[in-house]
Amino acid sequence: METKILLNENEIPRKWYNILADFKTPLDPPLHPGTMKPLTPPDLLPLFPMALLEQEMSPQRWFDIPDEVLEIYQLWRPSPMYRAHRLEKAIGTKSKIYYKYEGVSPAGSHKPNTAVAQAYYNKKEGIKRLTTETGAGQWGSALSFAGALFGLKVTVYMVKISYQQKPYRRIMMETWGGEVHASPSKLTNAGRGILKENPDSLGSLGIAISEAVEDAATHDDAHYSLGSVLNHVLLHQTVVGLEAQAQMKKVGDYPDVVIGCVGGGSNFGGIAMPFVLDKFAGKNVRLLAVEPTACPTLTKGVYAYDYGDTAKMAPIVKMYTLGHDFVPAGIHAGGLRYHGDSPIISKLVKEGVMEAVAYHQNPVFEAAMIFAKSEGIIPAPEAAHAIKAAIDEAKKGDQEGKQRVVLFNLSGHGHFDLQAYLDYMDKKLPDYEHPEEAIKEALKKLPKVA
Amino acid sequence: METKILLNENEIPRKWYNILADFKTPLDPPLHPGTMKPLTPPDLLPLFPMALLEQEMSPQRWFDIPDEVLEIYQLWRPSPMYRAHRLEKAIGTKSKIYYKYEGVSPAGSHKPNTAVAQAYYNKKEGIKRLTTETGAGQWGSALSFAGALFGLKVTVYMVKISYQQKPYRRIMMETWGGEVHASPSKLTNAGRGILKENPDSLGSLGIAISEAVEDAATHDDAHYSLGSVLNHVLLHQTVVGLEAQAQMKKVGDYPDVVIGCVGGGSNFGGIAMPFVLDKFAGKNVRLLAVEPTACPTLTKGVYAYDYGDTAKMAPIVKMYTLGHDFVPAGIHAGGLRYHGDSPIISKLVKEGVMEAVAYHQNPVFEAAMIFAKSEGIIPAPEAAHAIKAAIDEAKKGDQEGKQRVVLFNLSGHGHFDLQAYLDYMDKKLPDYEHPEEAIKEALKKLPKVA
Repeated sequence: METKILLNENEIPRKWYNILADFKTPLDPPLHPGTMKPLTPPDLLPLFPMALLEQEMSPQRWFDIPDEVLEIYQLWRPSPMYRAHRLEKAIGTKSKIYYKYEGVSPAGSHKPNTAVAQAYYNKKEGIKRLTTETGAGQWGSALSFAGALFGLKVTVYMVKISYQQKPYRRIMMETWGGEVHASPSKLTNAGRGILKENPDSLGSLGIAISEAVEDAATHDDAHYSLGSVLNHVLLHQTVVGLEAQAQMKKVGDYPDVVIGCVGGGSNFGGIAMPFVLDKFAGKNVRLLAVEPTACPTLTKGVYAYDYGDTAKMAPIVKMYTLGHDFVPAGIHAGGLRYHGDSPIISKLVKEGVMEAVAYHQNPVFEAAMIFAKSEGIIPAPEAAHAIKAAIDEAKKGDQEGKQRVVLFNLSGHGHFDLQAYLDYMDKKLPDYEHPEEAIKEALKKLPKVA
Repeated sequence: METKILLNENEIPRKWYNILADFKTPLDPPLHPGTMKPLTPPDLLPLFPMALLEQEMSPQRWFDIPDEVLEIYQLWRPSPMYRAHRLEKAIGTKSKIYYKYEGVSPAGSHKPNTAVAQAYYNKKEGIKRLTTETGAGQWGSALSFAGALFGLKVTVYMVKISYQQKPYRRIMMETWGGEVHASPSKLTNAGRGILKENPDSLGSLGIAISEAVEDAATHDDAHYSLGSVLNHVLLHQTVVGLEAQAQMKKVGDYPDVVIGCVGGGSNFGGIAMPFVLDKFAGKNVRLLAVEPTACPTLTKGVYAYDYGDTAKMAPIVKMYTLGHDFVPAGIHAGGLRYHGDSPIISKLVKEGVMEAVAYHQNPVFEAAMIFAKSEGIIPAPEAAHAIKAAIDEAKKGDQEGKQRVVLFNLSGHGHFDLQAYLDYMDKKLPDYEHPEEAIKEALKKLPKVA
């Protein structure tokens, strides 16, 4: 009984896939938040290396993965794919469930796939330090890990409430040499401004982004690094989907549906985009994005130009959004609490190439527990959204009398999220309804773009 | 540059290696703690299934790994081996350092290699529930994981101070369905007795063992399960060393020295014993056990008959011991705080087949930090002892002008040990001296065996 589907070391993909090459109409351009005019590379050079800006905007279909990046990918790539025989038995389905497991990376999620690439290109262009923000800490960990391996300093602005409540993620970053500041901090104008108004501010991702961007923009040897949303981030994550295709081929199977959870979109985009290429070529495959009902960007938001951050300092992009000042409830899947979504994913959903579904957190944790007890891996709360959808898709196949082939990305382990499991077992998890009124209010504040 | 050395799924060993077959003189027999007479299988049948007792005492060289166990091993086995190029560069050695990584198991250490086997044999003999003790929680996690996959209930008596201080390990066990009790508990005579004397007792591994053994002995459908020390436990762990041999062969190399940390001995025994077989056949290979100076069993203890537990309920075995009531200082490597050691490892050290060395915890964590920043993996404090020794062995090669080939077992990750890293970075870790006087006192209480 085949359980684990492995690739050899020499089967790590040598190229990333750039879906921009295959869009029939181009993405709407990102706009400068001040001028409302389309952004140009010079606008962004204080923050990003040229190589990443090229990847961000290029219509080139494939990008070579540099040898220096491949060498580090080797630490955990190719990542395993599993046929979930035990989960199938536990839920009594005749459908076949496969999952790709990205929790094997040292930082415990898919995030290092892009962190390593970003650290490499910045190092190559002479940058000495990277700045970034982090909420729960997955992205800050991944970038600290990548920085350690390339000898780059990493400065992380960590949302203060998380800094206080999640000390272990912080220590993990520090162990890799990352310098972690509670945000708002006194190190930036943005932080000092917030603290002056509200000395007890517990911070937000929006504030932390402002601090990280300001830090990079005001220091010549530093650049800024983002863990999701942007095109080049999704590009790097396609290594997941390309491996998944090779692994499905190895067992002579092909998915009816490919599933991933969505916060900013890099995890789902990473596994799904190579299959979108198949779909463009006529293949019958569904792509299903899963989000929390507490932050239902794709299922309840609008497709419009909006700011990438609360403070209106980030570019304005065309995407599904709940409004740049929408603040979702404090669910445990912290990585899925972004008000917007990647422009690439948004466009594909808008055009009907991808679908989206939203779940409450109790059914999500119920699925996570079934998975932990059958497959043995304790999933991150974010990844558990994909498990819930995979189970539902498999059962729908049973109802239709069809053996579906379901593939999902298990984007990370839950070793730093056990409090969430305890809350679930103690029946302390609220199921947040999407606040329709709050969303309507937030959407009224969208920027007016000509 | 070869970094990761993988085996294919069909290269998982099909047999465990039993070193008892190759001892020139047999192990001294374990004695009944009451009668002081050699133990017989019927003495132990209330606690263990027959299949495990056979493995415990048999001189048969190879045992087939059952298909049901192999299927679960597949979730993470074969585990990867790495050539530590980046570590070598970081410490500036010309020696070659390889490490086997057991932290890829769902429970995060080598422990599931035996937990899965023990759960299987107990299930097969109709047992419904397993009882065990755990300190920091590695073993309790592994057995809860294995129990979940075989549908066995698992009752864990967790040392109360750990139960209070390490809630995440406890939640991990509960997520897999384990029932965790703070020990001393009111569920057993042993626990009630302790609580009557001292209601505020924070517990000890000795007390927790007594509770778990009593629970199993007084319930027909329950058995007891131990995570180290015993011969059958070391047998199951040889899957690590057998894979390591195949991986070294794959890259055309052979270790000059094989290194592992030692608490009860199953981790070091697991990687080392297949190489001991080579050594018996004339191969020139050193086997190096690493322990903390705070609990220097092999380096400062005596080779004698002693009780396996503080409460004198466990069998009396011939081993290196610091005395059954020796209480080591509260170092972070909780898995290395056992007063005795596996009889197999003890005999091999006594006969000069294996060597041992002890380290203070600050140099151990210094090595762990170098490793985390170069190889990217944050090691468990226990495993960091092996890293420290590997670095020292590599450097000794440089001093001798010889390129040594060093292999060590990285037995687990440190995701649940980050407080220890913080304490190290904050310079709050004491370096405990081995208390010579305390050891002398403890050794006076060894049982008098004819």
